[in-house]
Amino acid sequence: MNIGSHTFEEFKEIARRFHGFPAPGLLLGGYMVENAKARMPEGVLYEAMVETGKCLPDAVQLLTVLSVGNGWMRVVNLGRYALSLYDKYTGAGWRVYLDSDKLDHWPHMQSWLIKSTPKKDQDTEALYREIEAAGDTVCSAYPIQIHERFLGKSSMGEIGWCPVCREYYPTRDGAVCRGCQGDAPYA
Amino acid sequence: MNIGSHTFEEFKEIARRFHGFPAPGLLLGGYMVENAKARMPEGVLYEAMVETGKCLPDAVQLLTVLSVGNGWMRVVNLGRYALSLYDKYTGAGWRVYLDSDKLDHWPHMQSWLIKSTPKKDQDTEALYREIEAAGDTVCSAYPIQIHERFLGKSSMGEIGWCPVCREYYPTRDGAVCRGCQGDAPYA
Ligand SMILES: [Zn+2]
Ligand SMILES: [Zn+2]
Repeated sequence: MNIGSHTFEEFKEIARRFHGFPAPGLLLGGYMVENAKARMPEGVLYEAMVETGKCLPDAVQLLTVLSVGNGWMRVVNLGRYALSLYDKYTGAGWRVYLDSDKLDHWPHMQSWLIKSTPKKDQDTEALYREIEAAGDTVCSAYPIQIHERFLGKSSMGEIGWCPVCREYYPTRDGAVCRGCQGDAPYA
Repeated sequence: MNIGSHTFEEFKEIARRFHGFPAPGLLLGGYMVENAKARMPEGVLYEAMVETGKCLPDAVQLLTVLSVGNGWMRVVNLGRYALSLYDKYTGAGWRVYLDSDKLDHWPHMQSWLIKSTPKKDQDTEALYREIEAAGDTVCSAYPIQIHERFLGKSSMGEIGWCPVCREYYPTRDGAVCRGCQGDAPYA
């Protein structure tokens, strides 16, 4: 099954270039993203909410103009393989999720998802074949309304100059930047 | 100045396709990412820490194989325009930041960064010209050691089946998934 306008092999190559390797989750995610896109009415400007940080955000970034850096894709780590696309003004949209009830005929996908086979014993080629054959038939969807706290544009507010590190930062963070308040990730 | 192997105009087009528009921050970020890459010793496998969610993560994703979805890029929102690349095993690397002391000769960049000119009065073409002319001369760098909590591979642990939503989730999150615990972003 094609992934949008790409053949499975083409998307595998796109995934490899962007993500470093053609992760099975990214390929499955491609079908999920295209399924969600097809549900959005034409002309609607939409944003994305992704419920896991693993692989699926990259499928969104490769198949839409939504990204982490433009703020049109958000990741909330609920550990579920699911994403929603929603009208950026009204919040109305669709949630597409991996449906555990639809995996009965796909033993390699199932054992990969629940990690019942040790990674070294996993038959990766068979898994790819199942992902391509199943396409979006392993997902389901229902309409959602995104919480209003995710609507509207976020602004950084006023920009100041941190007297400790001498870098620019949003002054609403305090008298010094958050890095200098102890949140920097360095030892 | 080129951005890695791309001319400025080429990278502007790459940015437009991925990010929706050639955001000035993404172009500036391109120079910062290439500056950081050049500091990493050959053959070192590195990961990235980005100190803002705005634009800069997309520069990393476009110019490296690090991404949100493969977990090799992390975003910690400190509100500073800075990123670090570091050896994924030892945590040793370089932090590249926008140096406020080096912006004196670039009035359009300065007023854009501190938002002293209303967006509608901003001369975007002049800003692009300054970003291209300045290249990475507006950033500085110093060696860092990433905190050890960011080293090593994170595992989701055991995968189970949520009795409420019937979806797969990491069982360490509890008896039901985090979405069903009330963390779902839907109204
Ligand atoms: Zn500071
Ligand atoms: Zn649940």
